[in-house]
Amino acid sequence: MKDIIFAYNKEKGEVFLKQLMGKNPLFTCVIGVTETAKIPGISAAGKNPELTDYTPPADAELLLFGKCKCISGVPVTPEGIPTPALITRAALKLADIPALVVSGGLKIKPQAPFVELGGSPGRDIRTGNAVEAVEEVIERAIIVGKSLAKTVDYLVVGESVPGGTTTALGVLSAMGVNAEGKVSSSMPNNPHKLKIETVKAGLEASGIKFGALATNPLKAISCVGDPVMPVFTGLVMGAADKIPVFMAGGTQMSAMLAIIKALKPDVLDNLAIGTTRWIISDKSADLVGLVKQIAEIPVLAINLDFSSSKFEGLKAYETGAVKEGVGAGGACIATILKSNGKISAKKIFIEIEKAYSQLMHSEVQ
Amino acid sequence: MKDIIFAYNKEKGEVFLKQLMGKNPLFTCVIGVTETAKIPGISAAGKNPELTDYTPPADAELLLFGKCKCISGVPVTPEGIPTPALITRAALKLADIPALVVSGGLKIKPQAPFVELGGSPGRDIRTGNAVEAVEEVIERAIIVGKSLAKTVDYLVVGESVPGGTTTALGVLSAMGVNAEGKVSSSMPNNPHKLKIETVKAGLEASGIKFGALATNPLKAISCVGDPVMPVFTGLVMGAADKIPVFMAGGTQMSAMLAIIKALKPDVLDNLAIGTTRWIISDKSADLVGLVKQIAEIPVLAINLDFSSSKFEGLKAYETGAVKEGVGAGGACIATILKSNGKISAKKIFIEIEKAYSQLMHSEVQ
Repeated sequence: MKDIIFAYNKEKGEVFLKQLMGKNPLFTCVIGVTETAKIPGISAAGKNPELTDYTPPADAELLLFGKCKCISGVPVTPEGIPTPALITRAALKLADIPALVVSGGLKIKPQAPFVELGGSPGRDIRTGNAVEAVEEVIERAIIVGKSLAKTVDYLVVGESVPGGTTTALGVLSAMGVNAEGKVSSSMPNNPHKLKIETVKAGLEASGIKFGALATNPLKAISCVGDPVMPVFTGLVMGAADKIPVFMAGGTQMSAMLAIIKALKPDVLDNLAIGTTRWIISDKSADLVGLVKQIAEIPVLAINLDFSSSKFEGLKAYETGAVKEGVGAGGACIATILKSNGKISAKKIFIEIEKAYSQLMHSEVQ
Repeated sequence: MKDIIFAYNKEKGEVFLKQLMGKNPLFTCVIGVTETAKIPGISAAGKNPELTDYTPPADAELLLFGKCKCISGVPVTPEGIPTPALITRAALKLADIPALVVSGGLKIKPQAPFVELGGSPGRDIRTGNAVEAVEEVIERAIIVGKSLAKTVDYLVVGESVPGGTTTALGVLSAMGVNAEGKVSSSMPNNPHKLKIETVKAGLEASGIKFGALATNPLKAISCVGDPVMPVFTGLVMGAADKIPVFMAGGTQMSAMLAIIKALKPDVLDNLAIGTTRWIISDKSADLVGLVKQIAEIPVLAINLDFSSSKFEGLKAYETGAVKEGVGAGGACIATILKSNGKISAKKIFIEIEKAYSQLMHSEVQ
């Protein structure tokens, strides 16, 4: 367990981990898109802004098949750094953890199985009218969460939504959480100023002041959120009534947490955030500072280290590129737990290198 | 266990039931439509042929929410006999068995969560070109089946596809199983002649002789099958590698069995068919006679008795209306098993009466 860092609320975190040791999880990944990601400079989750529509379905395909179908190669940043779905896939494979993809709202459908809840792609939050049918979709997600809770011991919920930290800043601001300068980025140089301006424009367009929607998260999502949020939080709330849930992601998780706290605070005791060391050591963001403002839930991080990688694309994670996504950190922690600690972060790293090498090779052919 | 009838291969059936006693299942329902159902007189799974497009999504909604959303009331036959989804819902609720809906191909999407595998609605089999992308869809369904097998002890797979016994006759004929006069019907007067003519037209249009596709079930589905078939059989094959699977349905199950036997015979030992007494005692059809021609898998039936019902719509089941669908028989058996026999068929009947009464009442309001 030395590979798991206790970043916040160690006491509860240790209890949480002990409870899940050797148990049988299901990994779910909520995918969706928002036009917000196409604002130049806001997201690196795609070779260029237009390609961000392909990143979530391609992540889903990589997760389920070990290779992408809707694009050649794998999703990369403009600098060519590969998607964290590689990490998630490798971890889940090692511990034989099943994965289920759930759509929040997509332009491109994955050529893979996914759960459909009727959500639509998100609009640019600067419209102040970002997400359709939030209430209906969240209700359906709750039903799925309840069903899944009857099948496994615990749930890990990850996400893939380019632009997701900006929409997180939007919802956190609408709900009165001080998040400016605290959300993370898939880029080494976090474009805080651009994110703040984008959110300000969205709040203005929807006529909402900072904190005005503290008790109305559904409206906060519909104004300045993204379509992954209702599905993610619905799954968590539906399942956490009965089983523990690992919220797997970076600073976006604080927005999810704020939404859940406002809608169903009694499940908070059944939650923890699982992320990566790269998020925790990110000096341009502050996950723990965000979580602290909302609820005292444990924050755990996998101590993955790519500094010895043979591949420049993976080494770049150590310089602050990508950091997290597709539930990578939570998936690694679940893998260690399911194996009762027999699978180490090092072993996951070796599996990632192997898989990435094979993918690079097959792409060249 | 006195409520479960052993209709075929009692010895194996007893072993199968014993193995599942007290275990934790997942109920999945594969829904889809085919234009074949709109041939006048072929299906009673809808008030009129055009409404058959609404029956599968409405069944899914009833299953998951206890009421329909895309139609008012519940799906009924032209005579007003209600859908067997009522039975399935009541049974699953009593034993707290989770349900997952999977789409084979739909015109109307359920206002409820469902798994999407990229399948399209089926064409009229008289075209000889009934189902698109069979291979892709079956591959995706296998992946889902494999994932689900990691979450629960066994799987129950049901279906809702109006016209499904005719497409079953189509595939059975293409694969060389003598099925004329043996498939069941949702109507008391089984329109065998019309079904046989329809299948003959389909085989002719696709240039296929009886039995010519004995070893090519994918082509049989694509020529004269329906879009539920690749999903249903894919789920079964994916899961049955690892866990037992209950194929829940009537004579359509023999077509599924023929497909599975041709593609993956090593899973046959992990399968049983679960159905209703109304199917077993149907003198106008012969489920056991069909199964015998394919594989010696157990056929079990729930001994539900609606003769004392307060409602004419339910009483009509005793005269041969509807008989089975939405995995009703298999769901009831799973409910009895999960409760270790504490829940009886009588108790399920009482729950059905209660739920139906509430639905009738709320419809009037």
